[in-house]
Amino acid sequence: HSGLCDRPKNTNVRLSLPAVCFVWQIAMIILFGIFIRYDEESDAHWIEHRKHKNISSDIENDFYFRYPSFQDVHVMIFVGFGFLMTFLKRYSFGGVGFNFLIAAFGLQWALLMQGWFHSLDYTDGKIKIGIENLINADFCVAGCLIAYGAILGKVSPVQLMVLTLFGITLFAVEEFIILNLIHARDAGGSMVIHTFGAYYGLSISAMLYRPNLDQSSALHGSVYHSDVFAMIGTLYLWMFWPSFNSAITDHGDAQHRAAINTYLALAATVLTTMAISSLFQKHGKLDMVHIQNSTLAGGVAVGTAAEFMLMPYGSLIVGFCCGIISTLGYIYLTPFMEKYLKIQDTCGIHNLHGMPGVIGGIVGAITAAAASEAVYGQEGLINTFDFVGDFKDMVPSKQGGHQAAGICVAVCFGIGGGVIVGGILRLPIWGDPADDSCFDDEPYWELPEDEESIPPIVQYNNHMRNKDVVESNFSMEQH
Amino acid sequence: HSGLCDRPKNTNVRLSLPAVCFVWQIAMIILFGIFIRYDEESDAHWIEHRKHKNISSDIENDFYFRYPSFQDVHVMIFVGFGFLMTFLKRYSFGGVGFNFLIAAFGLQWALLMQGWFHSLDYTDGKIKIGIENLINADFCVAGCLIAYGAILGKVSPVQLMVLTLFGITLFAVEEFIILNLIHARDAGGSMVIHTFGAYYGLSISAMLYRPNLDQSSALHGSVYHSDVFAMIGTLYLWMFWPSFNSAITDHGDAQHRAAINTYLALAATVLTTMAISSLFQKHGKLDMVHIQNSTLAGGVAVGTAAEFMLMPYGSLIVGFCCGIISTLGYIYLTPFMEKYLKIQDTCGIHNLHGMPGVIGGIVGAITAAAASEAVYGQEGLINTFDFVGDFKDMVPSKQGGHQAAGICVAVCFGIGGGVIVGGILRLPIWGDPADDSCFDDEPYWELPEDEESIPPIVQYNNHMRNKDVVESNFSMEQH
Amino acid sequence: HSGLCDRPKNTNVRLSLPAVCFVWQIAMIILFGIFIRYDEESDAHWIEHRKHKNISSDIENDFYFRYPSFQDVHVMIFVGFGFLMTFLKRYSFGGVGFNFLIAAFGLQWALLMQGWFHSLDYTDGKIKIGIENLINADFCVAGCLIAYGAILGKVSPVQLMVLTLFGITLFAVEEFIILNLIHARDAGGSMVIHTFGAYYGLSISAMLYRPNLDQSSALHGSVYHSDVFAMIGTLYLWMFWPSFNSAITDHGDAQHRAAINTYLALAATVLTTMAISSLFQKHGKLDMVHIQNSTLAGGVAVGTAAEFMLMPYGSLIVGFCCGIISTLGYIYLTPFMEKYLKIQDTCGIHNLHGMPGVIGGIVGAITAAAASEAVYGQEGLINTFDFVGDFKDMVPSKQGGHQAAGICVAVCFGIGGGVIVGGILRLPIWGDPADDSCFDDEPYWELPEDEESIPPIVQYNNHMRNKDVVESNFSMEQH
Repeated sequence: HSGLCDRPKNTNVRLSLPAVCFVWQIAMIILFGIFIRYDEESDAHWIEHRKHKNISSDIENDFYFRYPSFQDVHVMIFVGFGFLMTFLKRYSFGGVGFNFLIAAFGLQWALLMQGWFHSLDYTDGKIKIGIENLINADFCVAGCLIAYGAILGKVSPVQLMVLTLFGITLFAVEEFIILNLIHARDAGGSMVIHTFGAYYGLSISAMLYRPNLDQSSALHGSVYHSDVFAMIGTLYLWMFWPSFNSAITDHGDAQHRAAINTYLALAATVLTTMAISSLFQKHGKLDMVHIQNSTLAGGVAVGTAAEFMLMPYGSLIVGFCCGIISTLGYIYLTPFMEKYLKIQDTCGIHNLHGMPGVIGGIVGAITAAAASEAVYGQEGLINTFDFVGDFKDMVPSKQGGHQAAGICVAVCFGIGGGVIVGGILRLPIWGDPADDSCFDDEPYWELPEDEESIPPIVQYNNHMRNKDVVESNFSMEQH
Repeated sequence: HSGLCDRPKNTNVRLSLPAVCFVWQIAMIILFGIFIRYDEESDAHWIEHRKHKNISSDIENDFYFRYPSFQDVHVMIFVGFGFLMTFLKRYSFGGVGFNFLIAAFGLQWALLMQGWFHSLDYTDGKIKIGIENLINADFCVAGCLIAYGAILGKVSPVQLMVLTLFGITLFAVEEFIILNLIHARDAGGSMVIHTFGAYYGLSISAMLYRPNLDQSSALHGSVYHSDVFAMIGTLYLWMFWPSFNSAITDHGDAQHRAAINTYLALAATVLTTMAISSLFQKHGKLDMVHIQNSTLAGGVAVGTAAEFMLMPYGSLIVGFCCGIISTLGYIYLTPFMEKYLKIQDTCGIHNLHGMPGVIGGIVGAITAAAASEAVYGQEGLINTFDFVGDFKDMVPSKQGGHQAAGICVAVCFGIGGGVIVGGILRLPIWGDPADDSCFDDEPYWELPEDEESIPPIVQYNNHMRNKDVVESNFSMEQH
Repeated sequence: HSGLCDRPKNTNVRLSLPAVCFVWQIAMIILFGIFIRYDEESDAHWIEHRKHKNISSDIENDFYFRYPSFQDVHVMIFVGFGFLMTFLKRYSFGGVGFNFLIAAFGLQWALLMQGWFHSLDYTDGKIKIGIENLINADFCVAGCLIAYGAILGKVSPVQLMVLTLFGITLFAVEEFIILNLIHARDAGGSMVIHTFGAYYGLSISAMLYRPNLDQSSALHGSVYHSDVFAMIGTLYLWMFWPSFNSAITDHGDAQHRAAINTYLALAATVLTTMAISSLFQKHGKLDMVHIQNSTLAGGVAVGTAAEFMLMPYGSLIVGFCCGIISTLGYIYLTPFMEKYLKIQDTCGIHNLHGMPGVIGGIVGAITAAAASEAVYGQEGLINTFDFVGDFKDMVPSKQGGHQAAGICVAVCFGIGGGVIVGGILRLPIWGDPADDSCFDDEPYWELPEDEESIPPIVQYNNHMRNKDVVESNFSMEQH
């Protein structure tokens, strides 16, 4: 193996990338043709269904309950994650562009994988999809985009497609185990999405460890405007996180409460992130890396418990702690992990998704275990924790244990899956960049000419300056 | 005529632009005063109307069905189109700024023009407007913004105002013919908006052909950060296209289905765009022009059929094909059109709106012709195709023919209107830029000083470097 | 005092910023723990409440009426205001970052302050919050962000936290007086938010007058791409202003009408802003400062009257006038205020929020005074102006007087509060920057290395150029 790996790198993906795209897209078309149909609420028979079920108005179609949240989630996936990854000085195309590619592929495969587990109509063997499936597909993709953050700039687009194919598959299985078999609740995906995604990405990054990555250190940083671009991603993730955590909760109070809890947790995180960032820098200066990332940790950590009666002050406490932990992670843990654990984490996903995700799972377990009829009301308790069907005899304390079990499943799937997929991605056939051309768009993108080539007006000053230099040479020469 | 055209260009719009803005805005105020009033759902009498019509809740007000989609469409018009046109290295102000100007004017004129055709209350001769009119006005504006794409960087703001005035007028007539007289369905406007807009813009561009445009070639390209700005536009168009195609469809399943179909078509387009872009470049590198534009072609092409029972796999197929066609268009057709047809298409609107629009019309015609009660249900078929009133005896096969007729009307209005308006815009009175100052903000915008003038800290390095040069001169001199 | 102020400036906020953030965030947690709970619609008892109140469906939960508008407002606060303030060449981090900080703090304090006045449940002494409280908290924050615009680049983050703490407090009192005691209507906050915020900021700026600010003049301007970033802020404010003005109006026609009126007013403003900008510049060139700011004046000015029967042409007239006044303000009034009134207004908030806010109050007063049952209907008039309870004998003409009184209260609170808070902020303990490092991120942010340091490909041209210079030196030397 090692012999193969030592060959000079060939980053030409002219055959492999189109081949993967075409083959997988055609597979999607065939599988969608066999399996996927509209559900009752998006099928033209809705009008008959509505009369049959005595639904009084079109506004009761699930579309109107969830479409605004869906679009917010959609923005988070494509603009939020995409622009957050534009912070590198010369990897903005790759950050936003490859994010676009793998999200667009991943959501199709997610509709199938999640459909088989959750939306299969056994009467005709078809998956019936509606707006909630689209949201779940976006959620599923989020797991892979988180993983991308750890290896940003160090892999080829073909590797990302492979990461996504396996990532979505693992996600759907893990999600089925956690939500259906274990019966844990996880509205905002602290466990299912963030914990899984983070450890999946970190394990892959460990498998793809590059001892000589410092050869790319000149490109491993931001410039002024790339940091401003990244703030677009940060803010859209921050603003729409209440929609993320409330998008698939129950209609009514659960969506309402999840939005409020997330809004509050995120607000508290901003303050503690700024505080820690300033406190641990010379001269008290704020670091853009922290502001871009750690301000979001509260949204991750409140994901599981957002639909519970966490109470407004509970949300603030969760956000408060996660801002501190996440920022300290960037300052101390990320360098430690790179040096001693050989894990290179480009975007610091362990600080933004890993630790806050696990904390979110724990907060969820505690909040569930502490639930009572006094706080939720009898019907409220049953609704919130879905104590119906096979689980109608469940009690909150036991639910807390199930929640905790969910965290373990998410971590195990993340690490296990990441090690296997990382091993596959080490094969020398994927077109990954050499150590000295990481964090660089050049291998995979046609780049525009340098800004220096901007002519007339703008170049005027440059021209003058050069002229001065030349003239000063002349004058010196004449001495 | 040619004598007039040969005069040296005067790009000073200090009188003409304010004059046009003031005169037209005052005209709008007068016409709105005479004609435009609130409709039943936005008038203060709504509460009485509600009781009279036995509507159970305020939530049944059309506002709540359509406002989220409206805002998404609004973002597409102003940020989507606006930022997509910031990709040129020195025409970002013009791209986003003139887009803003003509959209803000166009939507007012569209409310009037479309109002006379569709929302005139014959009892009092007033146009009654509500949220659906605002969406339609935004749609109408989209046609003109598409046309702007073909001539981006080559015209003055006054010419754009003229283009918009006539474009909106033509649009409203064409739309009335296609939707009401021919009774074609076109929820997402593949024909009405995209086909019309593209051929309108291309014809104008042909009329304004500049044989010496290569004098501006130094500015006819992007820089690194302008490409990232353009991705903001791309992503907002991509993400919100499901809202675009579902914004004015029927309540309930039609809105739901249109969103799903568009979401899927766009996902497939991304993969085939990336594949073709990589396959046709040396070294397999991706081209930002394709990623910024062709990834959207699926949304255009699924516009007409989005509300039909196109089926999820049908949407994927449409997206699959359009990604290929659109990207190949950028690689082969755009240079061909410029060289042999004398059509200079700055943004490649023929590849993004023209061809996909016509394909969308054809897909719509086929899907309509193939519709059956088995798939739609009896009531569903009537609802979806609006087989009521004068058209209650319509059948799907005939509807398919009507759809096809719609495509022809859109193309004819686009080309015919473009030739006439292009002729008007050739008059030497509009302040358009000379061949060597196209794609340049300088003629129409106060530009900030160059970045080079940023002082202290930032200039520190530069300063050092220059100092080094000077010192090296000194040291050399001393030999 | 003046002795203290003359000391050399120390901008190190390493202790003060973290201290303020931690202390205030902990205070928030304690106060939220004591006071804040979920309201009926976001509490798990909703299902019982729903049955009890005979509400037919979950869709009647206020969440579904207001959540889309809430998210739009949220985007305006964080991306709209944040990016609008990135226009300075080297203060983009501070613009978007400090906006983020103070908004995240402010909304927590606003939930408490507004809660005590408006949402206190006297049965248990708790503030019950739902989606409408979140919107109001965002509104309240907007007042402080407007004030920030006047002093952008001239203060430390600690000063901004102080400004926000007092600003929110004053806002809540002023709002209670205007809306509840005076019973003025102010849906879009022309008086309550914009007038108050503008005069609060201007008074603070006057108190912090810097006679030697021209020492920072090199940084007091934009560069090409920072202007494009600012257009992101402008467009999101512009597009979502209809949501801002309709977010907390009554369900049904009032939300619907407020959105339409705002949409129209803003459209008209764009045209007159462009016209005046071109007319008053040499060569008719447009100025980005006007386009970024004055295009929004119509939204401010239509705020109070948006929910009234202002009529579509009335909205256009308001927008028409405000585009003119606001742009002329930038051209003539801002320099005048700096020179003669010693008020330095970085973003020109007097032109964007101050004058249009007062105009908005006046338009509201006139529209209210002119209201009649003929136009509104009997029930419509009562609903629109809330002529119930203590005010059931109110008549429109008297309401007009109350509206006018509201303007005065807003101006007085703004100026009075600003003078006091400005006095506090003059203390030499807050870490504000020296006159020669205003408009500079350097004192408060870790800045990335200069773009010049981008290596390989990109530096190639530079490298060549320098090499040429060196070679020319050599060749010269050899003479």
